[in-house]
Amino acid sequence: MSTNPPRGMRDFLPQAVHRRRYVIETIRRIYESYGFEPLETPALENLSVLMGKYGEEGDRLLFKVLKRGQKLTAALTEVTAQKGLPRQSALADLGLRYDLTVPLARVVGAYSGRLERIWKRYQIQPVWRADRPAKGRFREFYQCDVDVIGTRSPLVEAELLGAACQALEALGFKDFVVRLNHRGLLFGLLAVCGVAGARAADAVVAIDKLDKIGRAGVQKQLTERGVRAEQTDRLLDFIVFESQSVQEVFTRLESAAAENDAVRNGLDELRQIHALCQHGHTAGRVTLEPSLARGLSYYTGAIFEIVSPDLGVSLAGGGRYDDLIGMFGKQPIAACGISLGLERLLTLMEQKNLFAETETTAQIVVTCWNRQGRGATLAMAKALRDAGFAVDVYPESGKLGKQLKYAERKGARLAAIQGPDEQKQGRVALKDLHSGEQITVSFTDLCARVAALLQGK
Amino acid sequence: MSTNPPRGMRDFLPQAVHRRRYVIETIRRIYESYGFEPLETPALENLSVLMGKYGEEGDRLLFKVLKRGQKLTAALTEVTAQKGLPRQSALADLGLRYDLTVPLARVVGAYSGRLERIWKRYQIQPVWRADRPAKGRFREFYQCDVDVIGTRSPLVEAELLGAACQALEALGFKDFVVRLNHRGLLFGLLAVCGVAGARAADAVVAIDKLDKIGRAGVQKQLTERGVRAEQTDRLLDFIVFESQSVQEVFTRLESAAAENDAVRNGLDELRQIHALCQHGHTAGRVTLEPSLARGLSYYTGAIFEIVSPDLGVSLAGGGRYDDLIGMFGKQPIAACGISLGLERLLTLMEQKNLFAETETTAQIVVTCWNRQGRGATLAMAKALRDAGFAVDVYPESGKLGKQLKYAERKGARLAAIQGPDEQKQGRVALKDLHSGEQITVSFTDLCARVAALLQGK
Repeated sequence: MSTNPPRGMRDFLPQAVHRRRYVIETIRRIYESYGFEPLETPALENLSVLMGKYGEEGDRLLFKVLKRGQKLTAALTEVTAQKGLPRQSALADLGLRYDLTVPLARVVGAYSGRLERIWKRYQIQPVWRADRPAKGRFREFYQCDVDVIGTRSPLVEAELLGAACQALEALGFKDFVVRLNHRGLLFGLLAVCGVAGARAADAVVAIDKLDKIGRAGVQKQLTERGVRAEQTDRLLDFIVFESQSVQEVFTRLESAAAENDAVRNGLDELRQIHALCQHGHTAGRVTLEPSLARGLSYYTGAIFEIVSPDLGVSLAGGGRYDDLIGMFGKQPIAACGISLGLERLLTLMEQKNLFAETETTAQIVVTCWNRQGRGATLAMAKALRDAGFAVDVYPESGKLGKQLKYAERKGARLAAIQGPDEQKQGRVALKDLHSGEQITVSFTDLCARVAALLQGK
Repeated sequence: MSTNPPRGMRDFLPQAVHRRRYVIETIRRIYESYGFEPLETPALENLSVLMGKYGEEGDRLLFKVLKRGQKLTAALTEVTAQKGLPRQSALADLGLRYDLTVPLARVVGAYSGRLERIWKRYQIQPVWRADRPAKGRFREFYQCDVDVIGTRSPLVEAELLGAACQALEALGFKDFVVRLNHRGLLFGLLAVCGVAGARAADAVVAIDKLDKIGRAGVQKQLTERGVRAEQTDRLLDFIVFESQSVQEVFTRLESAAAENDAVRNGLDELRQIHALCQHGHTAGRVTLEPSLARGLSYYTGAIFEIVSPDLGVSLAGGGRYDDLIGMFGKQPIAACGISLGLERLLTLMEQKNLFAETETTAQIVVTCWNRQGRGATLAMAKALRDAGFAVDVYPESGKLGKQLKYAERKGARLAAIQGPDEQKQGRVALKDLHSGEQITVSFTDLCARVAALLQGK
């Protein structure tokens, strides 16, 4: 029988768990320092909550849970009686969490009136997608979402970006930048250039590829999508340019604002957000990128991405989506959020050596001498633990060399050895596993000497 | 559309998450101080790994995931072509984690040779069972398992019980006791009384109910199961008695040791474990309970339970199971573990008021004055955060009273208010939300004054 985890999923051995925890706890600490509160939802959702929320591809990529008991029997009886293939939803009633946004919307609907009108929540939990596994793409992976619901204030965008930037700084990332744009502005620019309706949505998909295919490539795709050459030219003059200051970009776009309300409103919001971003951990990091489109269609306002230019990858992304969170309730609810890509952060941190030296669980391994001495071994372990040290007791008596090798492999700094002679004298041998030096100390001095050795004195 | 989570599953709002994290982090910290290392496995396992491991009921209670894509089409085509109902396993290929023991066994099989021979691991993750929901019984719940594999040393039992007792003490539990028994001893006693084979397994089920149905009740059930009266009497004389010291219980059972090797070996192991338990956080807590049986059939040696006598409930349970962990490999591997029941601990801690005052995410809420003052608001928030305080910025300008109410509901201790006048003077008003007092401080003194106020000076 295969002992592998399911395809696209991973076992995390101790070192991996330590690293994941370090990253998650760092992000959590910073989110909480901004007043964000944690939410956790079940891994499973009723299938009716999930279906139809992520498009056709999403419906297909949902892990669906087979009905059970009589409901399954009834469904199967019906299936076998029918001709043709049944719909999957006839056989399944639950699905695994696919993202953290739909569960947030459901919770907001369920606890309506009992949550703050303005609610700042974060959620760090795994999601599951039956995607084709690839390098860096898994079927079980964590999302770290932070959102503010219930207000359209641009302070929200500034605070979300500030929290994300501070979290990245705390993890050791340095030269990242925030790319900022606005969906309303983008569609307004398209309208100014005479591109509207379905052609506008198509055009956005092409524009989103600017980084990869360049101005000429976008031009070609827009032409194929039926956008006329003079429209394309005017549009690309707005959104494609060599490096310019944020003020120059604002000035360039200002000329379209007189022609279109969406452009004017979008620019006004971006100016506010950009000004507020001068005050936090976003200071000096924000660039205006009129070609940034972001894939998801649900964004309604500001959109942003945090990228690491040296690596050419996105570390975080998000935006304002004012129509989604209210979907389980009676009215639209304003919302804005940003999501850090945990799995990518972990990969990059390994590449950049941003993890401190290998984390270890035990600082001291206490060796076990013989059956008679075991009680004394445990008493010693308790004394050390009561003093705040992490202590691993090797449970079998036997060759000391073997026990010391175990201690070294576990990354312990010290081994505490108490053979029959030491025991009689009330003494303990302490071996420094880094230097190899060994000293003998009295049992009464043990904790003080261990503290000194661990501090490198 | 229903906004409820699936039946038997729960959303955790911020206060609940804070409490769950506090309990989990406490347990984790203590497990790590004993040298246990963390393991995490995927929520999903290949169904073949799970099926047949938990008995017929377990197979039924597994949440099974529908096959996808062509595999599903093929399975459904076959199903519709057949007469009679198909097996569930034809339609599903994955299952949700049902416990943490089978995944441990799989990992030990998968990483054979790359893990320490003696491996101390803990795992704190959710499991899923399609059980009938009831008070305190959920379909998604956390298990906190800690196990040592690869050694039969009784130091293991002592350390596992020590870690569990210390974790319970750290959570604020006081008067709990460790009930200790041994499966080999129990079956040995049955053999001494002439009860063997299938009747012995039946008898153990009856004996396990002693607490609930009393001596007479067990006597009746054993008789119904075909155990003769004199056998029952002799057995019950061994295992049922009024309060006796551990030494008296050992002495009473000693008489059977001469007749049966399993009794002798079991008693020897229990004596060793009991002696070692005098040294750690188990000291004074261990009682010998020859009637303790524990439901699971896989135990092979010492078994134990930590109970809270005032509440009459079990807080933790475990034992030695030397044949299970090797199931995915070529040879048996010794193992012993204990599991804390997280959901029950949380319920009891709420009942006993063991949680400190309501945890809060933000210490200070910074109020927002008007559009002109927002930059200054964010600068103030950054200064406070850089000084280590958790700061929530209210994102909308508007009535101060409304903002202060928000701060109170969020459990913040202070509100920092900077209106246009204060801003001109470089000053900030600080309102203590507990006492209602308000002082005005200079911006340069802000962090020092906040620190003093939070420390109650």
